[in-house]
Amino acid sequence: MTEDERYMRMALEVARLGEGQTSPNPMVGAIVVNGGRVVGQGAHLMAGTPHAEVHALRMAGDAAQGATLYVTLEPCNHHGRTPPCTDAILATGVRRVVVAALDVDPRTAGLGVKRLQEAGIEVTVGVLEAEARELNRHFFHRVTTGRPYVVYKVAMTLSGHVAASSGHSQYVTGLAAREDVHWLRQIIPAIGVGVGTVLTDDPELTARDLAAGTRRDRQPLRVVFDTRLRTPPTARLLAAPGRTLLLTSERMASAPAARRLAEQGDVRIAPVAERDGHLDLHAALSAIAAEGANALLVEGGPTLASALLKSRLIDEIRVYLAPKLLAGGLPAFAGAFTQGMAEAVELHGVRSDWVGDDLVVTGRVHYREEV
Amino acid sequence: MTEDERYMRMALEVARLGEGQTSPNPMVGAIVVNGGRVVGQGAHLMAGTPHAEVHALRMAGDAAQGATLYVTLEPCNHHGRTPPCTDAILATGVRRVVVAALDVDPRTAGLGVKRLQEAGIEVTVGVLEAEARELNRHFFHRVTTGRPYVVYKVAMTLSGHVAASSGHSQYVTGLAAREDVHWLRQIIPAIGVGVGTVLTDDPELTARDLAAGTRRDRQPLRVVFDTRLRTPPTARLLAAPGRTLLLTSERMASAPAARRLAEQGDVRIAPVAERDGHLDLHAALSAIAAEGANALLVEGGPTLASALLKSRLIDEIRVYLAPKLLAGGLPAFAGAFTQGMAEAVELHGVRSDWVGDDLVVTGRVHYREEV
Repeated sequence: MTEDERYMRMALEVARLGEGQTSPNPMVGAIVVNGGRVVGQGAHLMAGTPHAEVHALRMAGDAAQGATLYVTLEPCNHHGRTPPCTDAILATGVRRVVVAALDVDPRTAGLGVKRLQEAGIEVTVGVLEAEARELNRHFFHRVTTGRPYVVYKVAMTLSGHVAASSGHSQYVTGLAAREDVHWLRQIIPAIGVGVGTVLTDDPELTARDLAAGTRRDRQPLRVVFDTRLRTPPTARLLAAPGRTLLLTSERMASAPAARRLAEQGDVRIAPVAERDGHLDLHAALSAIAAEGANALLVEGGPTLASALLKSRLIDEIRVYLAPKLLAGGLPAFAGAFTQGMAEAVELHGVRSDWVGDDLVVTGRVHYREEV
Repeated sequence: MTEDERYMRMALEVARLGEGQTSPNPMVGAIVVNGGRVVGQGAHLMAGTPHAEVHALRMAGDAAQGATLYVTLEPCNHHGRTPPCTDAILATGVRRVVVAALDVDPRTAGLGVKRLQEAGIEVTVGVLEAEARELNRHFFHRVTTGRPYVVYKVAMTLSGHVAASSGHSQYVTGLAAREDVHWLRQIIPAIGVGVGTVLTDDPELTARDLAAGTRRDRQPLRVVFDTRLRTPPTARLLAAPGRTLLLTSERMASAPAARRLAEQGDVRIAPVAERDGHLDLHAALSAIAAEGANALLVEGGPTLASALLKSRLIDEIRVYLAPKLLAGGLPAFAGAFTQGMAEAVELHGVRSDWVGDDLVVTGRVHYREEV
């Protein structure tokens, strides 16, 4: 590992401190090195608060003069909720800037580096770029597509069932796996379910500390895909802490039922265009991105999963496999799509890990080029 | 590890040389030790050929005098196709016999040890007993229940489907996993499928060397569960090398169609009692055990799997999980049994391993006590 890589690794570690709380912004970490010593470090922790570079340079103080700044993402060159980082860097006398990945935000992409170079600063780009892009895959995806990065999470038995034939599904997995899911609800800013799940299970969809039996302080945005607005006003998720977004057809969004639902708590009803009698899923996801979510954790059910996969909108899958068998029950993906096995969508970068007695298998969905 | 355990481990390793070829007999290994040296070793390799002890003592020759014999299963005390091993042991002047596990065959169980002790030989029982019972779980199961040990093998996508909605299932898994299955067909003496699989896929059900594109020299007994005898006379498995057993209702077994099928090759039609319009699965498995198979590898389909699980007759499961998703398709277990999640059958001793790009998860089925 080169010296640049070693310091960039530190910057990436610091960046991860903001996991799950920077949306719609990316996670960013910065390290200032002078005379072979780390003299400053910073992370971007929340939208609207200072960027990583600003924190790190502030900590370095006079030691920033002649120093090298390592930053995991190209410094911004535009006025957002905070002033451009390029200005802050130029004000300090930093001699060299090392960047892991260029930004993809069109207001910055390449312009931050250009500005620094024109001011006479030596700039190196691409150190641990793959790791930096992996770290912010949610952000990069949202900025380039206008939709959140979709993680589909499913808990299923080794017989391939997410619920018994009765629809009963509590619980497929053990405590450790369920705790893992509640942690996912902390690091992914929005959770989505189909209205069928609301009607069947009436979940609260909050992030909880299962051992302590309490709700966490920070709650994800809850999203229900509900074409015909069948969510009952008594649904537990409407009254739970945090915001709820009901995605429904344009017609239903202006119906009296919508007004009644909106009165139940911090609830927003968003109209979404229809396509073949269902919500247009591209439009639905854009509406979620508009709420500031870089990523969406879809937790059910089989109909929504199948429709999202068919629309090539699931980006990553996380399957919790429980060591048990049912003689029959409901599958994880239940669509009326007749397809041959050759049309199956491949997963890349598949990993498996034990979580208690359950096995969790994760992978990136790799859609073939459309012909 | 004690000295006894060290030599018993060697005996277990030698025993495994006969894996897949000793049925209906168990695998057995023997080691003769004298003066701190291994002076003889033997394995039981095939029913009708000498037992492990006989091979090992023959190799030891005069060195068996005063030696210790390590044997993975209690020496037999009855005349089967070969004379009792206890006689052979007593004839050699062996001083001590160490046994891993007692036999469960009622003709020997405990009697072999008793006979040796009465003749003044020092006998130790129970060294690495758990390993020895694990090694011969197929044999122990068949002797104690009268039915083969059933391994259910299924290849499914991570979306929980064994086939696309069209019924198409070639191929779910990659080459390495399919090679693994062809090896299973060498070490498990019988393969079973439901007639639906014969009608849909027309499989040959032979053990093949996929890389070389050839059939193996030794073929498993092929078994079709076929209540109404719908297997067509043109089915490929009837003409393939090796024996085929068609399990059907008593009425169909004596129908003209049965005669026609029996003429297609080495085919036997076995009448099995019915229960609620289907084969009585306990009786069906007994008919397979009667053919000399200690174990049965069930390869499909969903209806048979579900019925076997419901009847508490699957002993072990082996799930090959392919890193791909289908938006819909057929589940691995498709029974019309409404059950709550709490009624799921637990798996014990679950392991996961990579086989090429696929993950294979294995476990023992642990049925709850019936109340």
